[in-house]
Amino acid sequence: MNSISTAKLLGAIEAGGTKFICVIANEAGEILMRRTIPTEQPQKTLSACDDFFVEAKLRCGSISALGIGSFGPIELNPNANDYGYIKQTPKPGWSGTNLVGFFSQKLGVPVAFDTDVNAAALGEHTHGVTQGCDNFVYVTVGTGIGAGVISGGLLVQGLGHLEFGHILIPRHAHDVNAVSNCPFHENCLEGLASGASLNLRAPSGVSELSLDHPIWIAEIYYLALMCANLTQIYAPEKIVLGGGVMLKQGLLPKIHAEFLRLVNGYAHERILEKVESYIVPSALDGVAGVVGALALARSVS
Amino acid sequence: MNSISTAKLLGAIEAGGTKFICVIANEAGEILMRRTIPTEQPQKTLSACDDFFVEAKLRCGSISALGIGSFGPIELNPNANDYGYIKQTPKPGWSGTNLVGFFSQKLGVPVAFDTDVNAAALGEHTHGVTQGCDNFVYVTVGTGIGAGVISGGLLVQGLGHLEFGHILIPRHAHDVNAVSNCPFHENCLEGLASGASLNLRAPSGVSELSLDHPIWIAEIYYLALMCANLTQIYAPEKIVLGGGVMLKQGLLPKIHAEFLRLVNGYAHERILEKVESYIVPSALDGVAGVVGALALARSVS
Repeated sequence: MNSISTAKLLGAIEAGGTKFICVIANEAGEILMRRTIPTEQPQKTLSACDDFFVEAKLRCGSISALGIGSFGPIELNPNANDYGYIKQTPKPGWSGTNLVGFFSQKLGVPVAFDTDVNAAALGEHTHGVTQGCDNFVYVTVGTGIGAGVISGGLLVQGLGHLEFGHILIPRHAHDVNAVSNCPFHENCLEGLASGASLNLRAPSGVSELSLDHPIWIAEIYYLALMCANLTQIYAPEKIVLGGGVMLKQGLLPKIHAEFLRLVNGYAHERILEKVESYIVPSALDGVAGVVGALALARSVS
Repeated sequence: MNSISTAKLLGAIEAGGTKFICVIANEAGEILMRRTIPTEQPQKTLSACDDFFVEAKLRCGSISALGIGSFGPIELNPNANDYGYIKQTPKPGWSGTNLVGFFSQKLGVPVAFDTDVNAAALGEHTHGVTQGCDNFVYVTVGTGIGAGVISGGLLVQGLGHLEFGHILIPRHAHDVNAVSNCPFHENCLEGLASGASLNLRAPSGVSELSLDHPIWIAEIYYLALMCANLTQIYAPEKIVLGGGVMLKQGLLPKIHAEFLRLVNGYAHERILEKVESYIVPSALDGVAGVVGALALARSVS
């Protein structure tokens, strides 16, 4: 029995706005082959993904299922006509791309589909710092801001996927004139605090700026406020922060301090006593998406 | 079989900050006896509740379980030493009251326990406007503001219960100098938009003021912003608004219009096309809590 179950192979794609990462792995999650493909026009990128899986089949054997964690917005309702499609997106050429249809047809296996950030939350849940924790939030602070929420062991979903980056928030007092990076909202989290909005303020980059610089002071406030609101909204046991912005050295302790100032004592004692084990960095940064897409594949294999 | 199952009786308590409502009902949910008891000192109020259940037993028979939906904060973790207690509360005398322990001991039946607003969300789910809808948010806008969230058919809970009223929000431009009613936060939803905060601004009451009055203009903005954030946070299929503030005539259509302005097209097409079936009034106003507490009782009977 054991040799049969470990011989089963799974495929996964982390479909991002800049690159697609394709892997195949055994059921234990060990990655056997991996390829990074730039996100160009859909036809070119998807064909290159298909080539990868054809090669992988020749070298390692057939996969029994595929998991895809995709950039959005995407249609997740299995009853919708456009289930598995990328919806209206600013990414040129990609609106209306049928990801699930393409790979179902090419590979002939069940395809599980979710957002990149939900896949990353699943990856954290199965292999990351929140293993065994059934109530947590994973937030990526990268080009955009998105949250994947596990509640009672399951992903929170409803009418479409969460769009946590678009909650409306107060501006920092030093930041009242900054331009929002969001085309829809003057005052949403993503518009004011994403990596793209930081780049808008400092086109030469913010990574070299000190954390005392006004841009970072405002950013620390926004990310701490985000954690304070997540705390009241979901009552999570942990908040896991990932994404490129979080790579800034020394940022997390500043967020901890500002978070405590903002919640002002109004949070569970366990959080107040040990904030550094409550708001934590991703232990899977860079691979959470692939690990989660494999977990998606496993769920339909 | 039928006569046995309808003969089973359930008890329920909606434990509010101003009154406790005690009922017993048959399994079909028909209320057989009901009593409203003012919230005074715990010993007095709880004894009066106990008297009710003693009388009810004599007149109707034994209950097989009790459900309690309580004002908070309360301890919901069954593994905590103070499970079933009311925690530190501004309500004089009530901090540290062991509700579950008192009624378990007095009545000798299983007791299910949750927040008043979670009980109300359950009531809406079983008997209200969201029957059969497995992803929705119930918000009470009363003395305070609280939300009960059903996701995938289950209540969202984590490290304690949700404290949605304490999310930090931007102030309305006409409202920058208003005093927050929250002792913890200068800029939280409950501090700026609850019934208590309205009363702070207009001690003679706001119900007679026109909706064009600056107090109501700010209130409409806050409640619309609350709905906009709930939309991005939970992706619910419906938002149900209850509580005393929502009784103001003409308020809901103003919230609809302001909501559409704030989300600015960034929401599911079904919401944008028919906002009046998305943000809806409670159909169970005044009884959702009791109906939900009966559903809680049913879950342990």
